[in-house]
Amino acid sequence: ANSMLSALPTTIFTVMSALAVQHDAINLGQGFPDTEGPEDIVRAAADALLDHRNQYPPLTGLPELRAAVAESNRRFYGLTIDPASEVVVTSGATEALAASLAALVDPGDEVVLIEPLYDTYLPTIRLLGGIPRLVRLHEPDWTLDRAELAAAFGPRTKAILLNTPMNPTGKVFSREELGFIADLLVQHDAYAVCDEVYEHLVFAPERHVPLMTLPGMRERCLRIGSAGKSFSLTGWKVGYVTAPAPLAAIVAKAHQNLTFTTPPNLQRAVALGLSRDEAYFEELSSSLAARRDRLSAGLRRIGFAVLPCSGSYFVIADFRPLGFEGDATAFCRHITEHARVAAIPVPAFYDGGNGPQHLVRFAFCKREEVLDEAIHRLAALF
Amino acid sequence: ANSMLSALPTTIFTVMSALAVQHDAINLGQGFPDTEGPEDIVRAAADALLDHRNQYPPLTGLPELRAAVAESNRRFYGLTIDPASEVVVTSGATEALAASLAALVDPGDEVVLIEPLYDTYLPTIRLLGGIPRLVRLHEPDWTLDRAELAAAFGPRTKAILLNTPMNPTGKVFSREELGFIADLLVQHDAYAVCDEVYEHLVFAPERHVPLMTLPGMRERCLRIGSAGKSFSLTGWKVGYVTAPAPLAAIVAKAHQNLTFTTPPNLQRAVALGLSRDEAYFEELSSSLAARRDRLSAGLRRIGFAVLPCSGSYFVIADFRPLGFEGDATAFCRHITEHARVAAIPVPAFYDGGNGPQHLVRFAFCKREEVLDEAIHRLAALF
Ligand SMILES: CSCCC(=O)C(=O)O
Ligand SMILES: CSCCC(=O)C(=O)O
Repeated sequence: ANSMLSALPTTIFTVMSALAVQHDAINLGQGFPDTEGPEDIVRAAADALLDHRNQYPPLTGLPELRAAVAESNRRFYGLTIDPASEVVVTSGATEALAASLAALVDPGDEVVLIEPLYDTYLPTIRLLGGIPRLVRLHEPDWTLDRAELAAAFGPRTKAILLNTPMNPTGKVFSREELGFIADLLVQHDAYAVCDEVYEHLVFAPERHVPLMTLPGMRERCLRIGSAGKSFSLTGWKVGYVTAPAPLAAIVAKAHQNLTFTTPPNLQRAVALGLSRDEAYFEELSSSLAARRDRLSAGLRRIGFAVLPCSGSYFVIADFRPLGFEGDATAFCRHITEHARVAAIPVPAFYDGGNGPQHLVRFAFCKREEVLDEAIHRLAALF
Repeated sequence: ANSMLSALPTTIFTVMSALAVQHDAINLGQGFPDTEGPEDIVRAAADALLDHRNQYPPLTGLPELRAAVAESNRRFYGLTIDPASEVVVTSGATEALAASLAALVDPGDEVVLIEPLYDTYLPTIRLLGGIPRLVRLHEPDWTLDRAELAAAFGPRTKAILLNTPMNPTGKVFSREELGFIADLLVQHDAYAVCDEVYEHLVFAPERHVPLMTLPGMRERCLRIGSAGKSFSLTGWKVGYVTAPAPLAAIVAKAHQNLTFTTPPNLQRAVALGLSRDEAYFEELSSSLAARRDRLSAGLRRIGFAVLPCSGSYFVIADFRPLGFEGDATAFCRHITEHARVAAIPVPAFYDGGNGPQHLVRFAFCKREEVLDEAIHRLAALF
């Protein structure tokens, strides 16, 4: 069997979700909303099923969804995207990421990554024979050291994998940081795979800036979006890659070999979703911002040191002030078993689990009463 | 960009489907039915959407679908499968194939394949650093030469990729052939990835025998099935891998990195589908057998030599008796443009397109009146 995959632990999301179920805990681990997505979008998906949308759609996606993705790029970021040649619809952002990396990386190529990072990045790059070059953000403010980033680039650099808004930190990269990354990409003639699945989950006054909008970056970026995250329908697994046509053509070939297509009824509904007005996206982010505030305040009251968070579903907390004896994994097990609240140890977002052992990640994409109950339970334990 | 993917031509299925649309042709190229799947299954998928089935399901699939897959293995083949640890639900059989190969192959490992073959097999193996070892069936009866197969195995063989019922040939491997393959697997301590997506599309008196049911093979096979093919819903992209627990655990890790999960509403409907009675599966295969006969007879009347076909959506025809000057690709373009009937050149199923230039593949998974009209148009041209 494949030795790299064999050596991988079961993903922490599955481990913690299973432990949460076992202890009947509130699951603030895996990031998914506990409410449904917009009813009209769900209904459109159901209608499309009953309307003969059940055979293979085109390889790169339904024309109506590709057009909607292009239009949302124009509307939100002023990007001009050709829906026929610059959009590839995928079976979720995970596949979008695998297809984008497969399109770029030849064995031996280096990919620069920023830790902490989502747990599929490293295995996917390694499966393709790519070589990760890791740079760490510095907590508690998740600052990016420019000299450290520059040192990770070299003659074999093919790409950077950039996640903004960032999981698990909630960091939204600033225009200045992006400018520095852009300079390095030009200097090293490299590409960026931009995991921007949380693009619409950014909290005022912060704003999401796609690297692709910076000067010189239009031709170097593969930008990944996710309907699951933008419409609170994480099970749908509809993602999209926006990339310059020559790269999009190669992403399509990778997609052909990974899944070939994505259910057409869900594609049609997502096309409808992307055409929603400003008010929908504002309500999505302001409602999440309120829940970030609610959870963060509760955690602070209990005694956690809560780290800054400007976007995503997640906030990170330092549990050292609580005096718990043990590492982040032990802490997560402890609160799942004894407070019946599940969370994710932040070291799981580092290569080999080798990260800050005093930090845990909580998901706040849950109903307010659920967050309140979680705080109540944690307060009772500590 | 990745050099192997960059060098790949656009898949023949997309090329021919686009040409078919351009010429308003009947598409007997890409294999998908022109009727809908069973209405109750489609309705169950719609109901599940409206019933809160829209967030991440478990990584390896909904328990109810895993149970249904295990039960169908018992019912059809007498296999005892543990639904908790031996089934992984994937986003279609294409992903099942990629995940199974990723689970087995380390860079440098050899994989034995039988030509003609489906066009994602070779790129997927190469993307993983695997080395294909190709063996050709001998037309017109698609016989497997035992000495040639044995010669493809060696000390670096990790697996065989076996497709039965086979696309594009319609061959159903006999128990005797499977026995010979099983011997080689034991002898070389190798595995089999069994692409059995057409398992229920086998025409009496032929019967499908999974390699996994042969002595010693239970622990060596990863068996792939497809809801799209079994329920005539090719766009749904729900597949499943059945494998011994230690291998299934690694397939799950590959799946985690390729797509992570598969839409839960579709999974629930497929679980319902798999519980259908014998009559459904018999009607599916007998209806397709009738259409195979209808198309084959029509092609023979026109003058094609039609090759044997015992299963799948496809029949292969030799166009030499028609006196056409040109190769298989030219023939397919010719009939698409001038008879408005699209087909697939069989050389597209060989490495580098290097296959028998007198053979084309027709899909017969279409309504009878559509097949009749296609024959009518072809007869008018020749
Ligand atoms: C795909 S499961 C993990 C969901 C997620 O994005 C997270 O919890 O980080
Ligand atoms: C996934 S597109 C090709 C469909 C098919 O299996 C075929 O036509 O061979």
